[in-house]
Amino acid sequence: MQTLLIVSHPDIIDSGSQQYFLNAIKNEENITIHHLEEQYPDEKIDIAKEQQLLSKHDRIIFQFPFYWYSATPLLKKWQDEVLGEGFGYGTRKKPLDGKEFGLVMMIGVAEREYQAGGEELFTISELTKPFQAMANKLGMTYLRPLSIFQFFYLEEEQKMDYLIQYWQMLMMDKEKSLANREKWLIDQLEKTQNTSAAPNTLRFAIDQIQTNRDKMDELKMVLDDMFLD
Amino acid sequence: MQTLLIVSHPDIIDSGSQQYFLNAIKNEENITIHHLEEQYPDEKIDIAKEQQLLSKHDRIIFQFPFYWYSATPLLKKWQDEVLGEGFGYGTRKKPLDGKEFGLVMMIGVAEREYQAGGEELFTISELTKPFQAMANKLGMTYLRPLSIFQFFYLEEEQKMDYLIQYWQMLMMDKEKSLANREKWLIDQLEKTQNTSAAPNTLRFAIDQIQTNRDKMDELKMVLDDMFLD
Repeated sequence: MQTLLIVSHPDIIDSGSQQYFLNAIKNEENITIHHLEEQYPDEKIDIAKEQQLLSKHDRIIFQFPFYWYSATPLLKKWQDEVLGEGFGYGTRKKPLDGKEFGLVMMIGVAEREYQAGGEELFTISELTKPFQAMANKLGMTYLRPLSIFQFFYLEEEQKMDYLIQYWQMLMMDKEKSLANREKWLIDQLEKTQNTSAAPNTLRFAIDQIQTNRDKMDELKMVLDDMFLD
Repeated sequence: MQTLLIVSHPDIIDSGSQQYFLNAIKNEENITIHHLEEQYPDEKIDIAKEQQLLSKHDRIIFQFPFYWYSATPLLKKWQDEVLGEGFGYGTRKKPLDGKEFGLVMMIGVAEREYQAGGEELFTISELTKPFQAMANKLGMTYLRPLSIFQFFYLEEEQKMDYLIQYWQMLMMDKEKSLANREKWLIDQLEKTQNTSAAPNTLRFAIDQIQTNRDKMDELKMVLDDMFLD
């Protein structure tokens, strides 16, 4: 599976969260990192080139800071120009039909505020309806998004937990069984061992698998007890 | 009441709908038409000037084509930069608190598609949640939006019906009683008679009032009949 990660941020160098996540995938073969502001400093988007890039990938991810509950200006421009009539919609042929679409959003406000009665009033699912509608229009499968809340305040372990979810979002096939996730994580780990990735990340990932296994063992014991009677 | 109409369209000269509506209000004293692409051809927004402009108005309207279920790139840039920390949020003082906020959207797809089971899947109310959340965050009152569907295909009379709604959106105080709407429309008409506005528009507006009056008269007769027994 080939993933196209379309990143947009008006000031990416100063964004700790963007740097953290992008660093962790920079050597992945199956991910194309496509940073719009870097690619188009004059904001003149090469539409044909972008459409070709989309055609070559199976999963398309938008990664951006969630300012005013929406994408960045340049990412919106990219949507309006690249996904125009004849490519995005308006013809019988839908070039993106059957591909997967997902969002990775860096969010400055705490998760608990995104609900009725919270300061932000609506849930992330409600606020991202324009993107769900876009995926629907293009015939794409909308993935569960990755919302990263208040990255700046997180403990190291919480950051790593997000990192594993990020890896999964970008690289893991959609099968959702525990066995599959475990297998995928082990593969990912083995690859990571052969590169210079942070040993902390490695340690954390191993712990994650171990925790999962322990939970499975506990569950198995409970079930065994039940059927002994 | 002073209204600030913030218009954004990547190609406004070629937009028949934009020209139609903007022409109809160009001589109104209480509306400031603020076209972002014209004001900032290099897209460098004068933040202090924009914030000052906002402070001087009571009702703020965004007018834009509803591409990919959201605002234009330049309007999003305006939101991100002008409504930044310290002005839009992040301080105890909310400079826009108590003002009114509304959307005027030109929409290319038929209204019936904006619902569950329709091609667009979601309603306009669902898709505009990011703007509702913005108004909430800024302490502004969110007005019922004006969604103009498939303007290009409309009959002249339907266009005029939208035009009256547009006038109301930009100029009419929020009181919603029929008497108020009638009074407002008559005032508006008298003003229009003194300018060079289209006689068709005038005729149509008079018909609207007459229709309203006829309906009231009918209702009154029904009520009278009921209480005669």
